[in-house]
Order: sequence, then structure tokens, then C-alpha cells
Amino acid sequence: MSQEKASNRMWGGRFASGPDAVMEAINASIGFDRKLYAQDIRGSLAHAAMLAKTGIISAEDEKKIAEGLNAILAEIEEGKFAFSTKLEDIHMNVEARLAELIGPAAGRLHTARSRNDQVAVDFRLWVKEELQRIDAALGRLIEALLSRAEEHAATVMPGFTHLQAAQPVTFGHHLMAYVEMFGRDRSRVRDAIARLDECPLGAAALAGTSFPIDRHMTAEALGFREPTRNSIDSVSDRDFALEFLAVAAICATHLSRLAEEIVIWSTPQFGFIRLSDAFSTGSSIMPQKKNPDAAELIRAKTGRVNGHLIGLLTVMKGLPLAYSKDMQEDKEAVFDAAETLDLMLAAMTGMVGDMEVNAAAMRKAAGAGFSTATDLADWLVREAGLPFREAHHVTGRAVALAEEKKCGLEKLPLADLQAIHPAITEGVYSVLSVANSVKSRTSYGGTAPSEVRKQIRAWRKRLKRDARPHKNR
Amino acid sequence: MSQEKASNRMWGGRFASGPDAVMEAINASIGFDRKLYAQDIRGSLAHAAMLAKTGIISAEDEKKIAEGLNAILAEIEEGKFAFSTKLEDIHMNVEARLAELIGPAAGRLHTARSRNDQVAVDFRLWVKEELQRIDAALGRLIEALLSRAEEHAATVMPGFTHLQAAQPVTFGHHLMAYVEMFGRDRSRVRDAIARLDECPLGAAALAGTSFPIDRHMTAEALGFREPTRNSIDSVSDRDFALEFLAVAAICATHLSRLAEEIVIWSTPQFGFIRLSDAFSTGSSIMPQKKNPDAAELIRAKTGRVNGHLIGLLTVMKGLPLAYSKDMQEDKEAVFDAAETLDLMLAAMTGMVGDMEVNAAAMRKAAGAGFSTATDLADWLVREAGLPFREAHHVTGRAVALAEEKKCGLEKLPLADLQAIHPAITEGVYSVLSVANSVKSRTSYGGTAPSEVRKQIRAWRKRLKRDARPHKNR
Amino acid sequence: MSQEKASNRMWGGRFASGPDAVMEAINASIGFDRKLYAQDIRGSLAHAAMLAKTGIISAEDEKKIAEGLNAILAEIEEGKFAFSTKLEDIHMNVEARLAELIGPAAGRLHTARSRNDQVAVDFRLWVKEELQRIDAALGRLIEALLSRAEEHAATVMPGFTHLQAAQPVTFGHHLMAYVEMFGRDRSRVRDAIARLDECPLGAAALAGTSFPIDRHMTAEALGFREPTRNSIDSVSDRDFALEFLAVAAICATHLSRLAEEIVIWSTPQFGFIRLSDAFSTGSSIMPQKKNPDAAELIRAKTGRVNGHLIGLLTVMKGLPLAYSKDMQEDKEAVFDAAETLDLMLAAMTGMVGDMEVNAAAMRKAAGAGFSTATDLADWLVREAGLPFREAHHVTGRAVALAEEKKCGLEKLPLADLQAIHPAITEGVYSVLSVANSVKSRTSYGGTAPSEVRKQIRAWRKRLKRDARPHKNR
Amino acid sequence: MSQEKASNRMWGGRFASGPDAVMEAINASIGFDRKLYAQDIRGSLAHAAMLAKTGIISAEDEKKIAEGLNAILAEIEEGKFAFSTKLEDIHMNVEARLAELIGPAAGRLHTARSRNDQVAVDFRLWVKEELQRIDAALGRLIEALLSRAEEHAATVMPGFTHLQAAQPVTFGHHLMAYVEMFGRDRSRVRDAIARLDECPLGAAALAGTSFPIDRHMTAEALGFREPTRNSIDSVSDRDFALEFLAVAAICATHLSRLAEEIVIWSTPQFGFIRLSDAFSTGSSIMPQKKNPDAAELIRAKTGRVNGHLIGLLTVMKGLPLAYSKDMQEDKEAVFDAAETLDLMLAAMTGMVGDMEVNAAAMRKAAGAGFSTATDLADWLVREAGLPFREAHHVTGRAVALAEEKKCGLEKLPLADLQAIHPAITEGVYSVLSVANSVKSRTSYGGTAPSEVRKQIRAWRKRLKRDARPHKNR
Repeated sequence: MSQEKASNRMWGGRFASGPDAVMEAINASIGFDRKLYAQDIRGSLAHAAMLAKTGIISAEDEKKIAEGLNAILAEIEEGKFAFSTKLEDIHMNVEARLAELIGPAAGRLHTARSRNDQVAVDFRLWVKEELQRIDAALGRLIEALLSRAEEHAATVMPGFTHLQAAQPVTFGHHLMAYVEMFGRDRSRVRDAIARLDECPLGAAALAGTSFPIDRHMTAEALGFREPTRNSIDSVSDRDFALEFLAVAAICATHLSRLAEEIVIWSTPQFGFIRLSDAFSTGSSIMPQKKNPDAAELIRAKTGRVNGHLIGLLTVMKGLPLAYSKDMQEDKEAVFDAAETLDLMLAAMTGMVGDMEVNAAAMRKAAGAGFSTATDLADWLVREAGLPFREAHHVTGRAVALAEEKKCGLEKLPLADLQAIHPAITEGVYSVLSVANSVKSRTSYGGTAPSEVRKQIRAWRKRLKRDARPHKNR
Repeated sequence: MSQEKASNRMWGGRFASGPDAVMEAINASIGFDRKLYAQDIRGSLAHAAMLAKTGIISAEDEKKIAEGLNAILAEIEEGKFAFSTKLEDIHMNVEARLAELIGPAAGRLHTARSRNDQVAVDFRLWVKEELQRIDAALGRLIEALLSRAEEHAATVMPGFTHLQAAQPVTFGHHLMAYVEMFGRDRSRVRDAIARLDECPLGAAALAGTSFPIDRHMTAEALGFREPTRNSIDSVSDRDFALEFLAVAAICATHLSRLAEEIVIWSTPQFGFIRLSDAFSTGSSIMPQKKNPDAAELIRAKTGRVNGHLIGLLTVMKGLPLAYSKDMQEDKEAVFDAAETLDLMLAAMTGMVGDMEVNAAAMRKAAGAGFSTATDLADWLVREAGLPFREAHHVTGRAVALAEEKKCGLEKLPLADLQAIHPAITEGVYSVLSVANSVKSRTSYGGTAPSEVRKQIRAWRKRLKRDARPHKNR
Repeated sequence: MSQEKASNRMWGGRFASGPDAVMEAINASIGFDRKLYAQDIRGSLAHAAMLAKTGIISAEDEKKIAEGLNAILAEIEEGKFAFSTKLEDIHMNVEARLAELIGPAAGRLHTARSRNDQVAVDFRLWVKEELQRIDAALGRLIEALLSRAEEHAATVMPGFTHLQAAQPVTFGHHLMAYVEMFGRDRSRVRDAIARLDECPLGAAALAGTSFPIDRHMTAEALGFREPTRNSIDSVSDRDFALEFLAVAAICATHLSRLAEEIVIWSTPQFGFIRLSDAFSTGSSIMPQKKNPDAAELIRAKTGRVNGHLIGLLTVMKGLPLAYSKDMQEDKEAVFDAAETLDLMLAAMTGMVGDMEVNAAAMRKAAGAGFSTATDLADWLVREAGLPFREAHHVTGRAVALAEEKKCGLEKLPLADLQAIHPAITEGVYSVLSVANSVKSRTSYGGTAPSEVRKQIRAWRKRLKRDARPHKNR
Repeated sequence: MSQEKASNRMWGGRFASGPDAVMEAINASIGFDRKLYAQDIRGSLAHAAMLAKTGIISAEDEKKIAEGLNAILAEIEEGKFAFSTKLEDIHMNVEARLAELIGPAAGRLHTARSRNDQVAVDFRLWVKEELQRIDAALGRLIEALLSRAEEHAATVMPGFTHLQAAQPVTFGHHLMAYVEMFGRDRSRVRDAIARLDECPLGAAALAGTSFPIDRHMTAEALGFREPTRNSIDSVSDRDFALEFLAVAAICATHLSRLAEEIVIWSTPQFGFIRLSDAFSTGSSIMPQKKNPDAAELIRAKTGRVNGHLIGLLTVMKGLPLAYSKDMQEDKEAVFDAAETLDLMLAAMTGMVGDMEVNAAAMRKAAGAGFSTATDLADWLVREAGLPFREAHHVTGRAVALAEEKKCGLEKLPLADLQAIHPAITEGVYSVLSVANSVKSRTSYGGTAPSEVRKQIRAWRKRLKRDARPHKNR
């Protein structure tokens, strides 16, 4: 029996005219859902084992089915499987091949199951595994950031607001801000895993089944916490895919921010970092030019992830229950967003790990622009007891004087400072240098190197604790 | 001192030319951030109390500040406060009024704080409270759905795939699918609350402070689980706002699906439900016409929420740390999405609660189209031991016969069925009626009324347990 | 020389460590930009011809280059070309192969050109050709709609508002509404073509060149109206891609609306149309079930196109001039949106062409619900001279009576109508039937069959006129 | 008669229970559609005049109606009109007031019209006028750019790729790239105006009317090119709103790019420009800090416009014809996008006009990094006849030498250059300085000051020609 006829037969003889090329092109999903082959086969193996255990099929049939499925798995992984567009999707491709391999017993596999719950379980398994991959990748990125943060816990750089230097901070502290962001991304990933960790298999087409199936058994076999609780919801909803895309979009946004900073820091004008050759490209005739291609692409790919999120939200908007063909659009969006995010995380981890930091350039920029003016004002309030407004006024005058003398605040002679306000003492110099400025900011979560190192230690512990990702099973 | 000059003075004398009308229009946020007045004042009260406790300001000053702030709160709530666009934002408006009321002590409130951490804490408090409101609203919607589901646990309707009747289900089961969706929405809301439950106050401009502040004290006073761990992150990131919008967009998507079904069910062609006058509009001359306006608006407003999500993702994309003015765009998106979702949830709860169900029309539609064909095939496999493919073949012939005789499957005489396949017995009729079909689907999560009622009971328990929403504090 | 080394050599020897796998994966575009091979080669041929004409390269070199490029074109089209990821993109792949084929002369092709203007011209050519394809596809869809509209110019159906029958219209009139929409889509496509019809070749890296090139010559050779006017803009902007996506998204939205109607009309409850087997799928055991898969997929794929639009808008947001690597993300979005829209248009044209219309079901639904109540009220105003409000009041009473008598308005005896208002005459029945109702709406653009036919004729003329699409050249 | 009862009466007595607060909140549009009051009254005046001219209403009634409407217009503009939420929308508010003012004649205004075509014409008029405002604003921005471009036609700055200096360009040339972008934006605006310039009035509810109306007369009176051609399309489609939002989003994207550049150029590290006080904010104690608030907000507000676009695309996706209440969501998206874009354009025009350019800093940066290496290579090809690859090799060696000697290429002695390649002559220095580099790029659209000035003149002419924006009427 030719494959061309096989699908036709499966779908019934009423399609005399046959699906034409347009329909095949718009309808077939095998081009992308073949990615689910491993999940599809695992799901079928679990289903067959359950059918045998509950006596719905014979042990003998189950054995044949399992052997056939494992043979197909091997064929696919060895690149020997001939996927057919006529057979529309991965489920029909596997099913047709199973029938070829083991004959009528293949049909029994579909007892108490439909393509609707089959695709739901396949896709959920895939998304869950991808979330676990992202969880691990975020762990690696956080580790890379922690290493560099530790190395630069006391490296002074300008803290920017509005991309204008505002107050000195340390580069380690700046990197730790990203550790917090990626840490939250990771916790979103884990929440998403916990929420989708329910097995839809057994929901059948939409109504459940009258066969005495054991959904708890298949759920457990496939590593899910429990079976889903409503058969219509099980085959109709894709909020696990939407949540995946939302989590990915927020994580991509964080990555884009660090990428933008890398692009800016790499300019000769800033010169804070130098990317390794591995993550930049050059010009054959302008050897000093290093284009931060990887950073630019990370920044850009945020758009792609956002696009997939809005795409699937649009697909699902106003869709009546239960399964509609519209939902076939869920997969490419998720697959591409996943591949994109994997790549973004890997490239960012690589860049963070091997970028060269120009501490001197950072320090120089940190000291420019009277960046310790706030420290002077705070000192006046704290040590000299000046009211807030007066402290600001005095600081303004000191800055004006330094500007006139073309020197930093810390270079103004004490006499000059005392001329502005007599309460100023020698002690003020302890806050006027950028190094002292950052050292002084010891409030919880502040930029003082001691605080930064404390947070690095705490994060290392947290990472160790989080290394056991799936507490729910 | 006139208000016009006040802001100018605060920002320094260098703006001789003064911000012109365009700048004021694009820059001022008081038009929308006044919504944060209560959070702003609570934050300031907590900050002042902490400053006094740690000895940074005097108890006397703190008393004045607290009295002044409470007076301002009263003025705002009584509608007596004169908001000024010149003073840009809620923080400056309150600050300037406080200075008028209590004089120089007002300035001390700003010790060890900046507008950056101030707006971060205000907005976080607001988002947290909004999430708690949505949590409660979702609880009410779920309750309304449970009531109607219980009432219709055995009301048979067609289960649709592709908007074509596929298998009979019960209306209660269908409603319970939405309970699952809104239940997951609620768990997303709670995860979001737990994740944002950290207090940024004390991060100051971006670097922390050298004042000996106690951030744990303010965090606790404001009801947060703990202070944030990195001062730059505290003032730079808005992923709590992005997560809020993502959670809202997914929830809105669920609402839009039920709204679409309500629109379709309300057509004379379907006639499954009749909306109450409260949530529909009519025509003065076509009394039978009931336009499902509320459902249509719920469906549509999904677009608005999606738009806000993509809007803020776009704002945050590629934004360097720490605070940039771009982030001022976070508020209107969140405020409008919040108001929209509140309204959608309220309107949906109302519609679900008082729509009139036409059980007869549902049942009639459920019986059309040989919707129990699958049941016949399953019976042949289960009871008569036929192989899956043969069972389908036999079923196809029975359906063809029924089509020819223009009757339902359950009306075919036994002799006719046995002529198709001798293994068919009287017992087959137990699955051929729609009522028996649904009764038979007793798999976990299936549509059998017994299963539906079991899930309703389980959800009632879960609701009770979830009524204590903030276990983390 | 191995290909692996080739690219390395091209980019200079400073990348000692070599791009690792991550960088290759994130950086290489050959996986998708190979789609531009024909445009790339055409662009190079035009460039070489111009270089020879202006004496920048020799005629002999140009001959070699042209022969080499044509040989490469043949290799690619015959599937014999070995694309290499190491060589990053289509330009480098072609360039490296050209060097293999013709030696040093290959290098001269790159005189007065850079990859930046090369990719800009390739992509613009591709987008222009795609817009021309869409223009033609829209023409075919409009023709299909016109044919069906003509056939059903007098087929009465309910005109819906809020998915509730409001007034009778004709099916032809309804289809003509889509002709207007797709007509506007087509005019947007043509405006987009006219706007992008400028040739960026010769902008070089970003600054233009000191070689005496003739940009008007290459522009003309490649079929562009004229060269672009600013070299930085030429390599930096992608608004032609954004406009393409916006035009595609609006067109997809129109398609999604017709698709939704097809899904609803195909339900047994509406039963207005029956899709052909070619564009629907069935169930092996439920022969009456016809799933409108193609319509559902068209509806869903709108999300994908919207996603690509928002994706590229996000990529381009805040991107400094001139070329940044971010812009490499433009292609996949456009390619996939193009392929998607092509498919949507083809499938919709097919469905419109062969769907079976159930005129009886449409007519029956049109007559339900006192749908000519407005006609009665209008008659009372127009013929009996009643004030608007009174006419509505009288109509309301007539409808109430018909509802009570369970008959249509046109079945109420004249005596009954006159009892409600004495000014009613026999003439009123001329507007109470749905057929007469639609006939009466002869205002310009109204649903009267005569008006519908007039518009069909006008559109046929317009189509003929528009068949010459590229008046600008 | 109280207003509360008025609307109830209008909508029929069947809403005994009355719309409750939720319904009122979700349903009423008067909160935003009051913005359409002037368009609504103009539309009604045109309609009434046509009704009188065609004899459908009396001249006397028309006079009363016109007087009443003009009185209402005055009331609204003087702030004396009491808008009522109970009356839902602007149309009902005006209608109810008209009835109060002129009695029964008010009812006749609604002959041959419905709220569906009324809102369509109101909104189309508003969008058309907004597009005309944007057209004018783009004209002003282009003029501002032309002035600054002329002033800096020869001011050398680095031309960036990947935010790395690549080749010298002139600041005038860079600004002219934006002139091209905003010029295309303007042409999109004009295409959108031409496309929407059709009058839907007379489409009535959806089917047209049996009254002998003259739609060409109302179209002309309201300044439209012609009436729409299909009554269903007229009340169902909103692609003019979608196109408006798409055009706005692309324009906003262009604005965001210039805004990003302004932010970067304003950093002390770049120091290319200094914003005026009018469009930046400062710090009371850090006088050198100038935060580019307006630029940041322009950059950010792109997200808001994108959000509105995707929001309305989502609303319209899959919406059956004709009017559905969903479409009420069109207005707020458009109104806010319009206000946002107006503000962005005004702020950008202001910033461009008064930013201070630091030509010395630009020139210095342009000379760094051997930015004329390409010029040297091109010279070797052009003047010394070297093959392309050899020229690159020679250039690489010259750059290496300059790097070693820590000098610019133009400072290398001729002897050194000739040691690298004997074909190099004194003439080479004519291209090695940045000033000469830019002067040499005289290709059409190149950065040579002469070319830049030519384009400025051409644009001035084009602006003059375009000053007559509405050629179509």
C-alpha cells in the first residue's frame, strides 16, 4: 500500500477529490512536528503499557507495539525514517509505520486515545524538557556572572542613570543586578514547569473515555506530577505554551539589556570592555574595529521572541473549545522561541565569561563629572548635621568651584571647602574619592564591595540548593 | 513661593529657559501617577519611621513628617489637593506640599532615598495590591462557574472540535474546563505576587546609601517579605510589571474564549443560552434581538491587554541600567491593563451567573450528526472484542445506514445492527443515546456527570483552602 | 584551500581562536538568506556591468565575472552548490565560489560595493517581487469573490450585527464587502512597491564611494525607478520590510474575518455553506463531520503575521545608524510572513471558489426574527409620513403582535396592521418580505441586487485596468 | 424627562432590570468618543442638508436641526454640555440634547442613517484630520533637519556600523538619512489619507437604505473624494484605523532611532551634542549632568504605539461582518497613538532645532581608529591599479605600522608607505584625512558635502511642492 493512499484511507473515502497541493501545504505539520518524535513515542509506550496493565489490550500486543515503536525510534534517530507530508503529522507518520511493522496490533494502540490528547501530551513533554534546558542554561549564565562579579567586586565604574554617570558603583555590583534578573527568570521557569506538570493523556478526543484506563499510571510513567483534571481543558488549552513564551520574552528582555550595555561598553568612546574574537567580528583592513555581532544579535532576537508570544496570543484569542485546527500554530512559535532563547543564553554566557574588562577606563569614567557630589551632600547631612536642602546648596557651590578650577571634588583644598562651609573637616575626603564612595554604600544590597561579596556568597548557596531542580517529583 | 517656581528651584537654576509646553506635556507623569498617592504616602511614612528608629532623623521631625503626610492623604482623598503639572509627578507634588505644611523637616524625609527607589516601591505596592484584587476576582468567577457547572453537571450539549459537534459532553463539564483555566490564571497571579514581594526602598538612586538605614524594617512595615538584594536591579528592572501584563494577557485570552462561545451560543442558530438584559442590549424595534455587547467587549479587550504587554516589552528592550526615563512608560500600560482586566472579570462573572441555559436546545444539538458513533466503535472494541480498525469500519456502515434511514444510531433496530455485525447485542443501546454516552465516560477528568461532580467538590475544597491568599507573610 | 579556512582568511587573521559553534550558530545567516541567491547574483551582474561601463574594471574582468556568476546560478538552481555555514551568508558563499571559479578577477567585483548595500539591494528586490506576487494573488482572490458574488447577487441571507441577524442582505453583497477590503489591501501593496522602488546599490558600506560609479545605470538594470538619495539611509533603514509586514498583517486580518465566517457558516447550526473535500477534513466514523481546517488555519496564521510585524518593529526600535547586525533579523520574519500570506491567499481563493452555498438555509435564516422590522418603520416614515419615533413605536407593536401570533410580519393581515395604525395600506407588504426588503435598498452601495451587480461590473473594469501593475516603470 | 430614563426609553422597555454598574462601565464609550463631537455634528449637518435637498425631510425641519446642532456645538465648546454615561456615546448624547432643544424634528435626523454609519463617518473624519496634522508635523521636522543638515553639511563625524566608527561621514549627511525616513513616513501618511477618503455615510445599519438619499452630496459636503461602494464594508471594516496605526508605528520607530542616537551622543563619552535645557533635566547637585528625558521618552513611546497597533489587529482578527461591539475598541487605541505621535514629533522637532553640536568632538572621533583605511585601499585600487585583495593587504600593513607608531594613517611618512608598496605616491595623502575622505565620496547620495547640499536643495523643492497636501480634492 503506497503511503499516498494510506492517509487517504485513514481519513475515510469521502475525500474523492483528494487534498490538493495548497491544502497539503497549509495543513500538514510534519515539517515541524517531527521534532516531537521522541515525545510521541514515549507517550505511546506509556499508553500501551497502561492498556496492557488494565487489560484493555493483551500483553502480547503490547510487546509488539513496544518493539515496533522502539524500532521506529531507532529509524528516526539513525535518519532512516521516511517522513511523508501526505501523512500530515508525526502521529500519523509513526502510526502508519507501526502498522507496516507489526500489522493489526498497531491499531489497538489507539484505543482510548485520540490525536487531540496525543499531541497535547507530546507538546507538553517537549515544553517541559525545554524549560528544564533553559533552567540549566540560566544556571550557567548566573555562574558566569557570579565569577566575573567576584573578580570585579571592587572594580569601580560609573553607575548610570539616563546613560549619564550618576554615582560610582562597582562592576561586580552591576553584574549582580543581572544575577537578580536571571534569578527571577529562573524562578519563573520553575513555576511554569510546576504548573504544566499534569498529564493530558487519556482525555481522548475531548470527553474522556469509557475504557477503564488508569491515567495516574501514564502520568507517572511520563514523569508528570498527576493527570489533568478536565478532559476538555486538556485538549483545548495551550496556556502552558503561552506561559513559556511569556517567560521567554521577559528573559529575552533581560538579555537584550545586557547586550545593549555590551554594545555600548565596547565602543572606543566608552572602552569599558573588549570582546573576545569568539563573539565579535572584525574588518580585514581596520584591525582595531571589533563588531559586537553576538551582542547585537542577542539584542535583536528579543523581537523574535516577543513576536512569537504575540503571535500565539493572537491565535488563541477568542477560540471556542475544544480542539480547533488553529492550535496547530502553537508549535513553530514555541520551537523557534526555544531555539532562539537557547542560543541567546549560550552566546551571552560565552561573552560574559571571556570579555576583557578595562578597569582603568571604568575607573576614569567613574571619577569624571563630580560623581561623588551626592556623597559630599550625604556627608554634610550625616557628619556635619546640615539640613538636607542646605547640604545640597553647599555641594552645588563646591561643584561649581571644582568646575572652575577644572579639578575633581577630592582635589579641592580643605581651606576652599571650609570657605564654602566651616563645618567641613578633613574627614570629608574619606567620601570624595570614587573608591571611598563605593566602600561607604554598605546598606543592604548596596554597592560596597563587602556587600557585593556577601550577595555573591548567598547566590552561590542558592545555586547549589537550586541544582536539584525538580523537587515536585 | 509659587508652585511654578518651586519645581524649577528643586531642579536647579540652570534651566533658565524653563521647560516649554512640549517638554511639560511629554515629561510630566502626574496625570497618571497620582494614582499612586496612597502607596507613595505609605512608603514615606515607613521610611520616616525607619529614619527615626535608626537615629538618622529626630523623633520630632518624624512626628511632623507623619502628621504632614497624613494631612496630605486626607486632602487628596477629600479631593482638596491641587495637583500641579509643573511639579511633574506624584512624589514632587507630595514633597512640595509637605514642605508647605511642615517646613524644613520635609527635606529630611528624603535622606537616604531618591525618586528612583521611591517610585519603584510605590509601583510595586500598587501592582501587588492589584494582583490581590485579581486573585479575589478570579475566585468569584470560579465560584460562579462552579455553581452553574453543578446545576448543569448532567446537562448534555455537543462537545465541539473545529466548531463541529464531535461527541456529547455535559455543559457542567464544559464550564469546568474554564474553572481549570482560571484556576491556573490564579496560580500565576499568586506566583507573581510571591516573586515581586521584595521591597526596593533603600536602594536610593541606584547604589545604596552610606546612611545606616534598616531596609528590613521598611520592608516589613510595607508588608513585603524581604528587601531586594541589589540596589541597581531594584531601581532598573520592571519585570514585575511585565509579568503582571503577561499574566493578565493569558487570563484575558481565557476570558476571550468564553466570550466568543457566549456570542456563538447566543445566536438564534445555536440558541444554547440567553443573556440577561443586564449584559446585553436590544433594539427598539426588533425585540427578539439581543446583542451580547458585554461578551463582545470582553473578547475585544484582550487586544488591549496584549497591546500593553507588547508595549512595555518594547519599552524595556535594550534599555541600559539603571533608571532611564523610558521606564516612566510602565505605569499607564499597567494601570489600563489592570482596569480592563478588572472590568472583564466582573462582567464575565455577572454573565456566567445570570445567563439562562436552554438545555433542550443543547440536548437536541448533542444528538444530531451521529455524535455517538465513537461510542459505538468503542463498544465494539470493548464489549465485542473487535480490533480497532474493524470496529471503525462497522461503525461507518451503521452510520451510513442511519443516514439513509434518516434516524439516529440509537433508533436503528437490533436486527439491522446485527446484519452489519453479528457480535452486536442489545447492550449496545446503552451507549448509543447521548445521555448514556456521557454517563459512560468515567475516566478521570471525563465528562460523566459523576466525574464532573467529583471535580466540583474538589474545586470547592481548593477554593476554601485558597481563600487565605498570602501565606508568605 | 578548505572552505573552513576561507572565511577566516577573508575576515583577517586576528581571529586566532576562531568563531566557536555558538557564534557560528547565532551569526550565520546562510540558513535563510540563501533564499536571496537569484537577487544576489542579479545585483552582482548589474554592478559588474556598471563597473565595466564606467571603466572601473576591464571588460575582460566583467566577462569573467558574469560567466562565473551565471555558472554559480546554474549550480544553485540545479542543487549542486555546496552552501557553507562557515562562510556565513549568501554573499560570502557566492563570493568564495566565484574566486574558485575565476580567480583574482572575483575580487574586483567588490570594488565600490560592500555587503551592506549588497544585502540591502538583494532584500529589496526580493520584497518587491513578493509584493508583486501578492498583488497577483489578491487579483485572483478578488476574481473568485466577484464570480461568486455575481452568482449570488440576489441570494438573500441575514445581515448580521453582533452575530445576530439584523436586516436581510444578499450573499453577493456580503462577498463584495470583502472585494472592497482586498481591493484596499491591493492598493496598499502597490503603494508599498512604489515607495521601495529605489535602488540602494552604490551606497557602499554607508558613505558612498569615491569611485566614479553610475548608480542610475544599476538602478535601471535592476528594474528600480531610481537610485536612493542618501547612502546612510540606504544601508540602515528597513521600513520597506516593516511596511511589507504591516500590509501583510492588515490583509491577513481581512482573511481571518472571512475565515471565521466560513467556520461559523459551516456549522450544522448555520448550515449556510458546505466546504469542498479539498479544503476540509473528515472523520472516518462520523461522515457528516467536515472540519474546516483550511479556514481555521487561515484564521490562526494571522497571529503569525502579526507576530513577525511586532518582531521586526521591536528589532528596529532604537537602533542607531548605520548598519547593525540586529538587522539580520529582518529576513526570516519577512520570508515566513510572505510564505504564510501566499498560502493563506491561495487557500482562501480555493475555498471561495468551490464552497457550496445553501441558499435555502440562508433565506430561511434571513426571514427569521422579524428582520424586516426596520423596513416597516422606514415604510411608515417614507410612505405614511409618520414621524420617526412614532414609526418605531408602531413597528414595535406590529412585531409584538407577530410574535404573539407566531408568524412573520409579512403574514399579519392588513386589518391587524391597520388596527395598529390606520395609515398602513396594502403597499406595506412590498417591503415586508426579505426579497423585497433587499430589492428596496437601492442607495449607492446598498444591498439591492441591482446595486450589487453594478458594483461587480465596476470592479471587473477596475481589475482589467489594474492588470498592468507596474505603471511606474 | 430625566436623562437616566431617556436612554432606557430609547433602547426599549425590555431592559426592566436596567444595565448595572459593570455593564455601564464596560459598555459606555462617551468617556472617550466625546472627542468626536465636532465630527459627529458636522456629519449630522451634512446628512440633514442632504435629507432636505432630496425631499426626505422638510426644509423647516432641516433648519431646526441645523440650529439645534450648532447650539450643541457651541455648548460643548464652551464647556457647558453635560455629558451623560447613561446615554452611552457621543451620538446618543447629541441626539438626546437635540430632542430637548428642538423636539420631534430631532427624530427625523435619523432617517436613513444608523449609529453604525454615523460612527464610521465620525471616526474616519477624525483619523483623516489627524493624518493631516501628522503630515504637517512631519513637514516641520523635515525642515528642522534640513536646516541643521545645511549648517553641518561639511561637519565631519564618524559613520558607525555596529556602533563602531567605520568611515567618516558628515553630520549633515547623517541628518539627511532621517529626512529620507521621515519623507517616506510622510508619503505613507498621504497614501493613507487618499485610501480612506471615502464617505461611509448612507450605509445605514449595514444594508443601505430604501430612502432616495444622495450619498455623493454628503461625501462632497464632508470633504471626501467619493462615497464608499459597499454598505456592509462601510460599517464593518476599520482598516483605515489599522493603517493609521501601522504608519504611526513605523514613524515612531524612526523617531526612536534618532532618539537613541541623541541619548548616546549626549553622553560625556561621546559628547557629540549638548541638549538645550528645554528638552533635558538636570540634578540640583551635579550641574554637569543633563538627562536627555525627552529623547528617552520618545524612544520609549514607540512601545506604546506598537502596542496600540497590535491591540487593534488583535481586536479585528476573526471578527465576522458587519458591526460587532468589539469595534468600539478602535477609538482609544487610535486617539492615544495619535496624541503620542503628535507629542513625539513636536519634541523631536524641538530637540533637533536647538541641540548644540560639538563639531570638534565629532571630528576627533571621526579621525580615530584609522577610519580612512578604506579610502587608502580604494586609492590603491583606483589610482595605483592594485587588485582589490592586494590593496586590502597593503592597507592592513599600513594600519599595523600606524598602530605601532601610534599615529594616524595621514601622519605616516611617504617613505614608510612606499616601503610597504612602491606604487604609493604623494597623492595618497589627498584621501587619508577625514575631511578629504568625505569630500571624495561624491557618488550619487554619497557623503561628500557637495552631494549633501545637492540633496538638501532637492528636498527644499520637494517640501515646497508637498506644501499643497490634498491634491485629491
